[in-house]
Amino acid sequence: MNAHEKETAVDALLSQRVAQVVERDELRRMLLSTDRPLRVKFGVDPTSPDLHIGHGVPFERLRAFQDLGHLPVLVVGDTTAQIGDPSERNSTRPMLSPEQVRANAETYLAQFGLIVDPARTEVRWQSEWFGQFGLADIFKLMSGFTLARMIERDTFAKRLAEGSPVSMHETLYPLLQAYDSVAIQADVELGGTDQTFNLLVGRDVQRDHGQTPQQIMTVELLVGTDGVQKMSKSLGNAIGLTDPPYEQYAGTMSISDELMDNWARLVTRWTDAEADALLASVASGETHPKAAKQRLAREIVARWHGEEAAQAAEAEWERRVVQGEVSAGSAIAFAIPPDGIDLPDLVVGAGLAASRSEVRRLVQQGGVRIDGKVETNELRRFSADAAVEIRIGKRKAAHVELRTTG
Amino acid sequence: MNAHEKETAVDALLSQRVAQVVERDELRRMLLSTDRPLRVKFGVDPTSPDLHIGHGVPFERLRAFQDLGHLPVLVVGDTTAQIGDPSERNSTRPMLSPEQVRANAETYLAQFGLIVDPARTEVRWQSEWFGQFGLADIFKLMSGFTLARMIERDTFAKRLAEGSPVSMHETLYPLLQAYDSVAIQADVELGGTDQTFNLLVGRDVQRDHGQTPQQIMTVELLVGTDGVQKMSKSLGNAIGLTDPPYEQYAGTMSISDELMDNWARLVTRWTDAEADALLASVASGETHPKAAKQRLAREIVARWHGEEAAQAAEAEWERRVVQGEVSAGSAIAFAIPPDGIDLPDLVVGAGLAASRSEVRRLVQQGGVRIDGKVETNELRRFSADAAVEIRIGKRKAAHVELRTTG
Repeated sequence: MNAHEKETAVDALLSQRVAQVVERDELRRMLLSTDRPLRVKFGVDPTSPDLHIGHGVPFERLRAFQDLGHLPVLVVGDTTAQIGDPSERNSTRPMLSPEQVRANAETYLAQFGLIVDPARTEVRWQSEWFGQFGLADIFKLMSGFTLARMIERDTFAKRLAEGSPVSMHETLYPLLQAYDSVAIQADVELGGTDQTFNLLVGRDVQRDHGQTPQQIMTVELLVGTDGVQKMSKSLGNAIGLTDPPYEQYAGTMSISDELMDNWARLVTRWTDAEADALLASVASGETHPKAAKQRLAREIVARWHGEEAAQAAEAEWERRVVQGEVSAGSAIAFAIPPDGIDLPDLVVGAGLAASRSEVRRLVQQGGVRIDGKVETNELRRFSADAAVEIRIGKRKAAHVELRTTG
Repeated sequence: MNAHEKETAVDALLSQRVAQVVERDELRRMLLSTDRPLRVKFGVDPTSPDLHIGHGVPFERLRAFQDLGHLPVLVVGDTTAQIGDPSERNSTRPMLSPEQVRANAETYLAQFGLIVDPARTEVRWQSEWFGQFGLADIFKLMSGFTLARMIERDTFAKRLAEGSPVSMHETLYPLLQAYDSVAIQADVELGGTDQTFNLLVGRDVQRDHGQTPQQIMTVELLVGTDGVQKMSKSLGNAIGLTDPPYEQYAGTMSISDELMDNWARLVTRWTDAEADALLASVASGETHPKAAKQRLAREIVARWHGEEAAQAAEAEWERRVVQGEVSAGSAIAFAIPPDGIDLPDLVVGAGLAASRSEVRRLVQQGGVRIDGKVETNELRRFSADAAVEIRIGKRKAAHVELRTTG
């Protein structure tokens, strides 16, 4: 790579899929001039064993750092996972056992290796340093941080205002993950926009421990198939990295047209210019939204399963949904959240309708049959470990097996 | 001790100088019926080496437990002292070194032995259990407590409202001292009313760790010689347990008449009935307030130095103050806070006037001379390591050496 190519690659790294770089000019200078590999921290929260396509966004940024000669340092949060990241949710969750954490982390790392070269990655476990962490270390770590700043933190402030409990041990989460930056001597930390608070705390804690504060790069979060919340397995709005081609394809086809922009930029291998071109072509009427979405769905399947699998998934989807050629034998296995799923999500997820509102309209018109009977409850719920036959009008049908997520 | 005597002693223990007993009937039942010694926890904050007469109040309660056959368990806060008790102050203070803490604790224990029998006391150091405390222990301890409850705590709420910083490590203080109750398997915990929050947390933490929650007994706090704040060496309003007889006597004579009630009940060996009788006799005009205060001052000196020393101190005070017979040779050594002392406190503290307002009036009348010159600044400040000659009118004088506290 010559100097010009390097500059182009650095500028792409600093802009594509990136939400914020705290000191952009300084990080650019470091990337262009440094004669040693930068240590690029990325925290792994091993509380869920299955990754979704949203995880591909930071992985792809780490790959770009790697391609410029830098070193991703994965920090497996086997200690903080026993707390759980308060950014992730609105209530305190039960602590995981060390065994669960370790098993989840191994699955995580296998999927990480689909994008980033594991041979040029340093993997560290928090327990390396936190196993020996005593009260004196905790005092030093906590004393650099005020209670006022902690309760101003958005997720805590929200839960306090709502009266939902925040357990005191959750306040350790940002401090401990920040200390990881000290332990591994991070030059840069990468994370989602929901990690901005934690990443900034890392800078303070490094300063308290006599280190140069790390640079910070955040990436945009992928919105889930529901079009509302951040993609998350536990919300049932996710497409798994290792889901079979047809599920990935049908799941992508179920998203709303409005979500196309977010997805085209984040989960494809396209440049911003390529994504812009496709979206502009839809806006001008040149490309039909469905055709654009099919191109997106093909790209996603191709990325994780290859071009051939993508074409096969598309052909199957066309057959099942557009032409209604669904045989009793071709069952769809469908992963749902532990607390079940309602009818509109089920029908959209199975690729039998385009939106929740369409499903509700079809039910009102008497056009939806479950196991042969006309369904009248628009919001009927389905639990896991069941199998149902769904028919929409006369032409569309699917036999769906419901499994629990994870 | 027969059954009736025991019941009388238990009722005295539960009422004299006691502010609150959380489950009074239950503790009374335990004290009357138990066939094993109760473990009575008392936390020692070894951040200040010198104790004042206010510390005598809980010590005397511990002695009463001891006389009923129970076991005081002193917990020396050598770990939490590195944080400092947030109840004690309005701002975060620097951490003490382990060496300072240990030296202070030894001085503390020597003074404790003036009232409580050390041979029938168990002394434990927090470092016995906290030395090995790891993050998993901390998680368990903190997870039982919410952020909402922590920020509602009066001292934290006040500092947060004022915008003065509360460091995160201070939030560990109540939790760690509460864990002490688990470590020593406390049946009862004794403390000042300012410790009520901490003592209640002890009950919760014991419950979280599968123990029966301790009973709680709080004692009233002694107001300092200023008549305003809780007695504290660092506020310069204290009479030290080991201060010489004359200083104790003159310090007591300097308190306001209003403070007599608080002091007569808390720092004497008198029963409530005896204190009531003295106060009633003052109220009825039968006893002059000055005579009553002299009786109080004699009792305090006698308690810590014996009857003979009390009489000698009274004689000296009469000579110096009432008769003005102060020779240049009979200097008063006077301990003042690090930031100095103002004229009214100095004159009252030296036993040359009864109140700050009297001193200010005397200055306005031109009746106060410092080192021979008429003083016009009512609030002139004096710093340590100086010696001044004070004259009040024609008859009262003292040569005062100013030393730093501690």
